[in-house]
Amino acid sequence: MLADIKVIAFDADDTLWVNEPLFQDVEKKFCEMMEDFLPHHSVSRELLKTEIQNLSDYGYGIKSFLLSMVETAIKVSAGSIKSSEINRIIELGKEMLNAPVEVIDGVEEVLKAVQGKYRLVMATKGDLLDQERKLEKSGLADFFHHIEIVSEKKEPQYEKLIKHLDIEPAHFLMIGNSIKSDILPVLNIGAHGFHVPFHTTWELEVVDKKVEHENFQQLEKITDVLTHLN
Amino acid sequence: MLADIKVIAFDADDTLWVNEPLFQDVEKKFCEMMEDFLPHHSVSRELLKTEIQNLSDYGYGIKSFLLSMVETAIKVSAGSIKSSEINRIIELGKEMLNAPVEVIDGVEEVLKAVQGKYRLVMATKGDLLDQERKLEKSGLADFFHHIEIVSEKKEPQYEKLIKHLDIEPAHFLMIGNSIKSDILPVLNIGAHGFHVPFHTTWELEVVDKKVEHENFQQLEKITDVLTHLN
Repeated sequence: MLADIKVIAFDADDTLWVNEPLFQDVEKKFCEMMEDFLPHHSVSRELLKTEIQNLSDYGYGIKSFLLSMVETAIKVSAGSIKSSEINRIIELGKEMLNAPVEVIDGVEEVLKAVQGKYRLVMATKGDLLDQERKLEKSGLADFFHHIEIVSEKKEPQYEKLIKHLDIEPAHFLMIGNSIKSDILPVLNIGAHGFHVPFHTTWELEVVDKKVEHENFQQLEKITDVLTHLN
Repeated sequence: MLADIKVIAFDADDTLWVNEPLFQDVEKKFCEMMEDFLPHHSVSRELLKTEIQNLSDYGYGIKSFLLSMVETAIKVSAGSIKSSEINRIIELGKEMLNAPVEVIDGVEEVLKAVQGKYRLVMATKGDLLDQERKLEKSGLADFFHHIEIVSEKKEPQYEKLIKHLDIEPAHFLMIGNSIKSDILPVLNIGAHGFHVPFHTTWELEVVDKKVEHENFQQLEKITDVLTHLN
């Protein structure tokens, strides 16, 4: 029952603010740099392969992406990459870390409407420092009771988060753009999930599955949250 | 008053387990790789300079260290570093991420003795995934109520942690090896700090200051905690 909800957790990247397009933009530049060695789409495939291989070592976030790009550049060029190009990759990463934060339309309206009625948390993967910095730049920090950075968004992490919040799963609603990370594990443990799609999704987050569940709502845009909660 | 303490927070690296020697060992190997370009101690100084410059972008942890080594290698070699050597740096980083965890003598004894009497948390900087992994490997995970990863260990972060724990500063004791990160900010907000030195300290954490404060105890080894708390 939506009436039971006490805590709303918002995913951050591509739910509160624009993120994936920044990665895609840098990946595009990276593939262009590597076009002397391999066609664009092959570089892109090699990069994804390296990212997947490195996931258990590095986890998510810009620094991991950066290290995977360096590794891919060396591999794709069979070692002939110039160090000035590796420097350029590092610069691209630093530009990403310092990029302005673009809050998604409707987010502030929703946060204003639900604050005070629910305890709001931000729950995200990725790098702590980077997510804190983005929250600060977004101007949304004051809406949140606290932020939770997790190394993975699977059932055990959500169970821990809910226990930590001192509530039952039925009191917890997760709102996010990833069916895989924000919705399925949450429904599996008896909590609620609202899916708000973003126009582009990282390949590793794509699931080909239609969700049907009594605790689930498929929304079109973030402001649809208000139709269901009020 | 030590009798008021409800929560004990333990720093992780070089308090629960050995850490800095792993960094120093890799730095030594890195400086040896670079000796064709600059003497060992000059490479070391350049690396520290790069690390300090990158701190606000990258934060703490192995991935940051790794990216700073790559950047330093390119700089020190004036771009003539071979990509096979950059690959070697990346490998050194992955070895660090997968290194076994060496729990410091006496830690388990102390945790066993205080568990149940106090709520125990692990409070550390660095990379979430890496710290979670080390806690898992250490076999100490079950002692802790939860872990708190912070991007910096300064007064605001400790205030937030204490608020989050729903206690007063006087109820909080921090135990760690860094006067700068584990002790001074904690004393400044009215909480308690026990300093347990480790034989080696990262240059950025060194402070040249004698601490005198009614909420402070200088210990020699971790098991001295028990003399003061029991």
